[in-house]
Amino acid sequence: MTKSALQIARAAYVPKMPVALRGSVRAVEGAATEAAGDKEEIKRLFPHTYGMPAVTFERGDAADPMPPINAGVILSGGQAPGGHNVIAGLFDGLKAANPESRLFGFILGPGGLVEHKYMELTADIIDEYRNTGGFDMIGSGRTKLERREQFDKGLEILKELGISALVIIGGDDSNTNAAVLAEYYRSIGAGVSVIGCPKTIDGDLKNDLIETSFGFDTACKVYSEVIGNIQRDCNSARKYWHFIKLMGRSASHIALECALQTHPNVCIISEEVEANDLSLDEIVNRIARVVARRAAEGNNFGTVLIPEGLIEFIPAMKRLIAELNDFLARNKAEFKMIKKSVRHSYLISKLSKENAALYASLPEGVARQLALDRDPHGNVQVSLIETEKLLAEMVDNRLSEWKEEGRYRGKFATQMHFFGYEGRCAAPSNYDADYCYSLGYAASCLIRAGKTGYMASVRNTTAPAAEWTAGGIPITMMMNMEQRDGVMKPVIRKALVQLDGAPFRAYAAMRDEWAMTTDYVYPGPIQYFGPSEVCDAPTKTLQLEQGK
Amino acid sequence: MTKSALQIARAAYVPKMPVALRGSVRAVEGAATEAAGDKEEIKRLFPHTYGMPAVTFERGDAADPMPPINAGVILSGGQAPGGHNVIAGLFDGLKAANPESRLFGFILGPGGLVEHKYMELTADIIDEYRNTGGFDMIGSGRTKLERREQFDKGLEILKELGISALVIIGGDDSNTNAAVLAEYYRSIGAGVSVIGCPKTIDGDLKNDLIETSFGFDTACKVYSEVIGNIQRDCNSARKYWHFIKLMGRSASHIALECALQTHPNVCIISEEVEANDLSLDEIVNRIARVVARRAAEGNNFGTVLIPEGLIEFIPAMKRLIAELNDFLARNKAEFKMIKKSVRHSYLISKLSKENAALYASLPEGVARQLALDRDPHGNVQVSLIETEKLLAEMVDNRLSEWKEEGRYRGKFATQMHFFGYEGRCAAPSNYDADYCYSLGYAASCLIRAGKTGYMASVRNTTAPAAEWTAGGIPITMMMNMEQRDGVMKPVIRKALVQLDGAPFRAYAAMRDEWAMTTDYVYPGPIQYFGPSEVCDAPTKTLQLEQGK
Repeated sequence: MTKSALQIARAAYVPKMPVALRGSVRAVEGAATEAAGDKEEIKRLFPHTYGMPAVTFERGDAADPMPPINAGVILSGGQAPGGHNVIAGLFDGLKAANPESRLFGFILGPGGLVEHKYMELTADIIDEYRNTGGFDMIGSGRTKLERREQFDKGLEILKELGISALVIIGGDDSNTNAAVLAEYYRSIGAGVSVIGCPKTIDGDLKNDLIETSFGFDTACKVYSEVIGNIQRDCNSARKYWHFIKLMGRSASHIALECALQTHPNVCIISEEVEANDLSLDEIVNRIARVVARRAAEGNNFGTVLIPEGLIEFIPAMKRLIAELNDFLARNKAEFKMIKKSVRHSYLISKLSKENAALYASLPEGVARQLALDRDPHGNVQVSLIETEKLLAEMVDNRLSEWKEEGRYRGKFATQMHFFGYEGRCAAPSNYDADYCYSLGYAASCLIRAGKTGYMASVRNTTAPAAEWTAGGIPITMMMNMEQRDGVMKPVIRKALVQLDGAPFRAYAAMRDEWAMTTDYVYPGPIQYFGPSEVCDAPTKTLQLEQGK
Repeated sequence: MTKSALQIARAAYVPKMPVALRGSVRAVEGAATEAAGDKEEIKRLFPHTYGMPAVTFERGDAADPMPPINAGVILSGGQAPGGHNVIAGLFDGLKAANPESRLFGFILGPGGLVEHKYMELTADIIDEYRNTGGFDMIGSGRTKLERREQFDKGLEILKELGISALVIIGGDDSNTNAAVLAEYYRSIGAGVSVIGCPKTIDGDLKNDLIETSFGFDTACKVYSEVIGNIQRDCNSARKYWHFIKLMGRSASHIALECALQTHPNVCIISEEVEANDLSLDEIVNRIARVVARRAAEGNNFGTVLIPEGLIEFIPAMKRLIAELNDFLARNKAEFKMIKKSVRHSYLISKLSKENAALYASLPEGVARQLALDRDPHGNVQVSLIETEKLLAEMVDNRLSEWKEEGRYRGKFATQMHFFGYEGRCAAPSNYDADYCYSLGYAASCLIRAGKTGYMASVRNTTAPAAEWTAGGIPITMMMNMEQRDGVMKPVIRKALVQLDGAPFRAYAAMRDEWAMTTDYVYPGPIQYFGPSEVCDAPTKTLQLEQGK
């Protein structure tokens, strides 16, 4: 493995840790907890792990020697910066308690547990990956741990390796599954505890007890770096509107955070679109109005941030897609016989009036995509829709109309961007390096305290790292019942952007000004060696949420 | 203007400078020079500025006080990181010689000179932009200074402002025009000297006397950062082939430098394609072979770097485009009458055999684009062709054929990226910050020495900055005659990737290994505050060219 100069220098970084996790650690239990919603139902589903107390770690007295523990670790789902540091913190925590402890990594995600694919993570492997991005140490995967056969199959290898604790690093779904697994293993007396860690660049796994999911900080900083660079280009060349789509299917936290960091002229927030029942047409009008007002001041350039999941938050689009899915499923054979060149008009003739009008208004490419590209379940593949092109094209059309009406004079030339893969595996910022290491270390302390069904929790993270608090939260405490694939299931509530939350309010208060004034901010690349205010600052989202 | 923490911290950076430029500076003249080619013709075209000696700066004795000078500066063409530092170095150099000197910036490029749009650049404005990216201090533009009326019109405002020296910061064309302007002003005794500075992220303005153009270092580092991040994701998820297109219409220096920094599985070099007369089909085969060989080892993932200008370097594509341009220009009216749905087959029936076969082999979208989207001169807009999608789709088709033949087993899923605007306006790396500041300072010394028709030159830049040398090179020395738009013109020779040069040879020696071994390097973000080996390293290209 050839290493860059930065990789080599960064390997020596020692993550900052809460004082409470240094040296001997004592677990202090709080009061019994309850589920976030549907308490009775959750209690019924988790008889062995419901109602456990939240745990806080404090500095302990010189500890009695602990027996060695064999633990396992799994990376689940999409990559997020800092995953390797969670594993390093877990490893160091286990070794600090007893140098004879061992850590096993399951290969390529939860599937590795079921298929018995694993490797022992020794000190030289861990050292190779400290403070690096990516999940390539053991790989990740999207197999869902949901079925009893999987649990039992996994238990075989856990027993074989003498593993008594399993740490699952994942998003809301993976942590939900960790809770189910914890409950099951306890119910059968398997002797294996299960601990979760909150991961996702999307930032939608957070609540009163989990401040943020790891990776969100780094990913947003990488996106903000390139958005800032594009904005400086935009402001220098003064001739393009840049439409920039950002990862984030379910929530718009990334787009919002990047807007707070870079001050674009427009940022669409999916949750607001849904709450206000905005149509695609209204979104297009909003953008076009900003373009026209800037053009009136001679500024034929600007930036628009768009969350990847927008389409699914537009109520009218959702209705159109639902009718298309339904119609095409019922008339599959007939539709295939229709000539490609007349499919567009055929569908318009078949759809309900409202949906037909919306479908007819879409650019040709998108209309074709909606009618053709379907996943194996017959659903439109929304992630393939190039929302940034869709909006740019519709704004262009709208401006042409306005130009004819004399309402707009200006030039409208566009550039498109989509950022996602650029940030998921960046080397972690100091914040994520510290946060992840502390999460992993806290997980080791939860294991030592004999806990199961907990998520590692590190809080007060807008303060210096020494003052952070660490502990564990019973996963059932974050759960409620929600419909998934037509069935009511216990799940961790997904954290969407709150329209009455401080981050959105801060953006909403400034957006009219940012639309017009070209107050672009250029955050620049993540720094690892400079002054603390440059290297250690948490996200704007977190600072605003904590009133800073 | 709201500033990020990094912007604020970075403003305090003091660019490192060659010892020769510190304090009093003495201009030492070398022997008379000659043009790079077509010496007699260049000499005839530049009677007043041909054959001047190269100039080297050395530390001088305590200098006599210099009279104040009013100077002008123009940013020409596409943005490149460090432009503001050239202006800062120029400003500081002029002020060091005499604090009464003044600097005027012409607004939005060469057009500002012709249209008399300018602003005085005072210390507070300069300070606001030190070490920042972008050209937004005075803006840039693409107006070409070529005609005598422009020169005369410009002279009016230069006279009005008492400007006796004009610095033009631009690429090969802009510097060619600077030489023409210098010759003209000298020929009419205008009393205005003209100095050029070598700018372009493309890296194609360099020769024996100019080591590199500024901006290339920073832009390549930004692209390599995100390519590295994508490769880490690629290597973690292990399920996508990423096709990454990189800016650079004329030369593949950017793609080559990024390949040397990140070790992708495939990198296409346009100059090699042209030299070996490779067909599109052969390029597709080359990529598909690597995909198939990796798949055979279970690795259904990888990265492919593609220079933006590739299409124009494929001889067969050039011939096809030429015939299409010609045919459609001659049969415009008739073609418009042809139904869209049969245009494809119509064109195939009309093209020559070889071109028809190639046209028929292209994916539908590209074929449509080649037949439809034309610029005002009737030419295909090559820059609109999504080469990364074209190649990915053709590789996919090729693999399907091989699968049927049993020659390939594997999965082939792709992601596309195009990086350009992300890097042109990044804040300059230490290298570019230092190099640009030194170039600007050297330009002020050339002005003080009464030179015209020179390009500022800073060399030995793989050594520590204190040991860099500075001077000026007569622009005519880099010129030869070339055909442009059907006319022979004196131009600075564009530097393409040399297939016998050290950077390409270094890549060629490793590419078979990199294709298979997944030896990805993750350069990470540009650092400003860390150890010198992380913060100050020049490009691999430059190091290899200088035998390091």
